[in-house]
Amino acid sequence: MMNTQDLDKKYVLPTYARADVEFVSGKNATLKDVNGKKYIDFTSGIGVCSVGHANELLNTAITEQISNITHISNLYNIAPQAKAAQKIVETSGYDMQCFFGNSGAEANEGALKIARKWGERDGKIKRYKVITLKQSFHGRTITTVKATGQEAMHNYFGPFPDGFVYADDMNHVESLIDDHTCAVMIELVQGEGGVQPQDKDEVKALAKMLKEKGVLLIVDEVQTGIYRTGEFLASNLYEIEPDIITLAKGLGGGVPIGVVMTNLKGVMGAGDHGSTFGGNYLSSSAACTVIDILNDYKKSGDLEINTLLFNKAVEKIYKKYTNLFTQKVGIGMMCGLRVKDADTLAAIINSARENGVMVLRAGRNTLRFLPPLTITKEEIDEGFKSLDNALSSI
Amino acid sequence: MMNTQDLDKKYVLPTYARADVEFVSGKNATLKDVNGKKYIDFTSGIGVCSVGHANELLNTAITEQISNITHISNLYNIAPQAKAAQKIVETSGYDMQCFFGNSGAEANEGALKIARKWGERDGKIKRYKVITLKQSFHGRTITTVKATGQEAMHNYFGPFPDGFVYADDMNHVESLIDDHTCAVMIELVQGEGGVQPQDKDEVKALAKMLKEKGVLLIVDEVQTGIYRTGEFLASNLYEIEPDIITLAKGLGGGVPIGVVMTNLKGVMGAGDHGSTFGGNYLSSSAACTVIDILNDYKKSGDLEINTLLFNKAVEKIYKKYTNLFTQKVGIGMMCGLRVKDADTLAAIINSARENGVMVLRAGRNTLRFLPPLTITKEEIDEGFKSLDNALSSI
Ligand SMILES: Cc1ncc(COP(=O)(O)O)c(C=O)c1O
Ligand SMILES: Cc1ncc(COP(=O)(O)O)c(C=O)c1O
Repeated sequence: MMNTQDLDKKYVLPTYARADVEFVSGKNATLKDVNGKKYIDFTSGIGVCSVGHANELLNTAITEQISNITHISNLYNIAPQAKAAQKIVETSGYDMQCFFGNSGAEANEGALKIARKWGERDGKIKRYKVITLKQSFHGRTITTVKATGQEAMHNYFGPFPDGFVYADDMNHVESLIDDHTCAVMIELVQGEGGVQPQDKDEVKALAKMLKEKGVLLIVDEVQTGIYRTGEFLASNLYEIEPDIITLAKGLGGGVPIGVVMTNLKGVMGAGDHGSTFGGNYLSSSAACTVIDILNDYKKSGDLEINTLLFNKAVEKIYKKYTNLFTQKVGIGMMCGLRVKDADTLAAIINSARENGVMVLRAGRNTLRFLPPLTITKEEIDEGFKSLDNALSSI
Repeated sequence: MMNTQDLDKKYVLPTYARADVEFVSGKNATLKDVNGKKYIDFTSGIGVCSVGHANELLNTAITEQISNITHISNLYNIAPQAKAAQKIVETSGYDMQCFFGNSGAEANEGALKIARKWGERDGKIKRYKVITLKQSFHGRTITTVKATGQEAMHNYFGPFPDGFVYADDMNHVESLIDDHTCAVMIELVQGEGGVQPQDKDEVKALAKMLKEKGVLLIVDEVQTGIYRTGEFLASNLYEIEPDIITLAKGLGGGVPIGVVMTNLKGVMGAGDHGSTFGGNYLSSSAACTVIDILNDYKKSGDLEINTLLFNKAVEKIYKKYTNLFTQKVGIGMMCGLRVKDADTLAAIINSARENGVMVLRAGRNTLRFLPPLTITKEEIDEGFKSLDNALSSI
């Protein structure tokens, strides 16, 4: 029998540069590979396993749900979907409605569709242009690739849809707005772009300016949402009221799900959008349980305590290795360290893995931490001890 | 507490016209609603629950997988993903590689990306145009909406990407090919378009012509794949060798998953495509188990026996209600009856539900049957008895 790596090479398209490690089991922020080696997971599947690996409450909920129904279709009422929508809306504090898809890219496609349909209804000339930021990341469908502001990504797959305009930074947005602009789409903390938070005052000023100009604000919370930055949504933390918000990653605790929510309740009608799997019994009951777990975790104060612990540990590493790091960045459980150069970062990630702790790259030279939100003090201690060992050998 | 319908109205965007029924449990092709009423399911969640509701083998596999790992990320080797790819490729008989996404729309986005990157590499002028059929359905992202050949869908969400050309039918395709054409994309049995199979000889001639002209053939098997038409892929049944095939619906047995597979192994490189959830431990281990179950079911001969039984029952209804139906259409467990008009079809679907059997609409006036492939003789008998009752009252 072929091993996994050989099977992968033979049968899977080579779109990923995979590290040669194969995990077989996990518990919260601790993973074991096929050789029995233990790792502390500071990645949570790039921000997905918000409640840790093999979370018992979540797994019990999933197992119970699938013993009844995994999937029917959106032609009928789906109780867990309606409940998940209620939980998301009520926890967010925004007066919105939800549409369910299956990924971050699908959530953003929904956001763009809503904004553009709104732009056609609202006024005599069609508004269709969407302004995004140069360092953004919004997904891998042909349209979300084009919405992503990184020029290097706009190859091969065109013709891309017209109507995307890129701002160098937040201050550049206003000058790009014209009569055809329907929306501005931003991440409040750019994830793939380098764990780069926007300035809160700038964001509030942008939101105010857009409201005055009658342009929609779309916040891509695929990575920042579901308590990743300390509040349920980063939009809550930034104290803004976007028109459209997208969620994915952490919402299902590992089950594929994406959500677009909006206060524009009258825009989309029957038949305007759809998804076969979106919001099915499995994914939406998982989302309900994840939200319940994390709402409790937040209320208990433990999220804040562990976030502080985690950030102190990052700070300590940062101060100890001034030869490697130039800046600490991020918010909450979405944080990072700028590394002096890309090669050093690659060496750090590999050495960390060899030493039993998994960390991520973001942008060109940011060491990124996205631990399970439920990571324990013991796991934090152990992970940073391993990271310290790794760094001392660089 | 609000009931599901009211919650849905309040918190979910109104993109679906849902029938007022709420299912709470299921077993194979039998469902129960919140009032304890029993239904035979001839829809399988629009072709998703290929191995029936609450399939024990599938649920055991899922429960075991999530007790270990639900999700890590595509930065590392994922054994069930590599195995799922192997099973898909080997069962198909095609020498291909797979990419994993989370829906049919995402699978088709992948197909279009591969075709267009191939079109850029292969020759001096860029080939980017994709020819699709007028009655096709390919998804709900902005690009797959445009790939869908139904003019009525090309509203609101533009600018759409250029490069899609629509053929009236198979015979019209050749005349649309020019130097910029990279691919032709078809469903072998149009699902949403009205359960309309293509003619086998015409498909073979098209495949041959495309090969001669150096234009790719993409087959969208989101609905026809995974034994829906009797063979693993409809492409197997039609005896063609497409360049790119997409799968979704039935592959995960209810767990969201989409796959694009291709013989163009050298086209996509690291970084050209990606998905956070795609091919994670949960969805790909579900796919492995679904394929195992259905491979056994096919080999035992039971799939063929039950498909014959099901089609005989459709035939009987067709012959009995010549006042309502004008034609029997479809292949295998993807079949339908053309109804004399759209209003009558709506009445049939509602009356069927009231009588305890769920059926679907396709296109304007096709009564569509997509039962779980594992539906039993008893369930077939009971479902058609209920349908007979429903029809006798129309
Ligand atoms: C901010 C943001 N938006 C969208 C996406 C795309 O999400 P997905 O990979 O689930 O399609 C990502 C993924 O990394 C993301 O970080
Ligand atoms: C042939 C075909 N392609 C693509 C799709 C889109 O699949 P999804 O709803 O999973 O995005 C469908 C869905 O009905 C389909 O029937």
